[in-house]
Amino acid sequence: MSSIIRFQDHVGAKAEKFYKTTLFQGDHMLVGLNCLEPGQSQALHDHADQDKVYVVMEGSGHFTIGDAVQEAGEGSIIWAQAGVPHGVENTGSIRLTVLVCMAPPPH
Amino acid sequence: MSSIIRFQDHVGAKAEKFYKTTLFQGDHMLVGLNCLEPGQSQALHDHADQDKVYVVMEGSGHFTIGDAVQEAGEGSIIWAQAGVPHGVENTGSIRLTVLVCMAPPPH
Repeated sequence: MSSIIRFQDHVGAKAEKFYKTTLFQGDHMLVGLNCLEPGQSQALHDHADQDKVYVVMEGSGHFTIGDAVQEAGEGSIIWAQAGVPHGVENTGSIRLTVLVCMAPPPH
Repeated sequence: MSSIIRFQDHVGAKAEKFYKTTLFQGDHMLVGLNCLEPGQSQALHDHADQDKVYVVMEGSGHFTIGDAVQEAGEGSIIWAQAGVPHGVENTGSIRLTVLVCMAPPPH
């Protein structure tokens, strides 16, 4: 796979659950894309030993990070340090696409 | 620092060298912002033991990743796996702002 891509070429949709795809993976980090249709959500969860960041590429949604709950749209950066519960719901009217970096990558 | 921020609130400029700021850092990953004024560049370099990804937030530039050289603009994602040389030059007419995730973080 090329090392230089456009996120728009990798979006997708699933009816039953939000769409997830891996873009890149190394020994130290995974880069993926999560696409949530309006109303879809990723339940609150945490990763004990992984730092994670979301970057909103398009759309907007309701992000929960620990005790913080906030609407965030394009250009927002959302940080979930290891152990901090996080989740997201697409509360908007268009697709919410978030880039996700996770380190280290899942086994 | 809040866990939910907008990149626009963290951009900056320096005359002598491109502007760098750290947004978040955990045990496993660093998230930062690099802002290059037109004509500024980050010389080709590599990190033997760190995976890195750039996300173009605004502007466009000339990215080199190993043997790949490509213009990339807003919405582009550029992957430099550990050991792969990478660099960027702002060849456009406006500021080039790239989000950078690096794992593990520098010591």
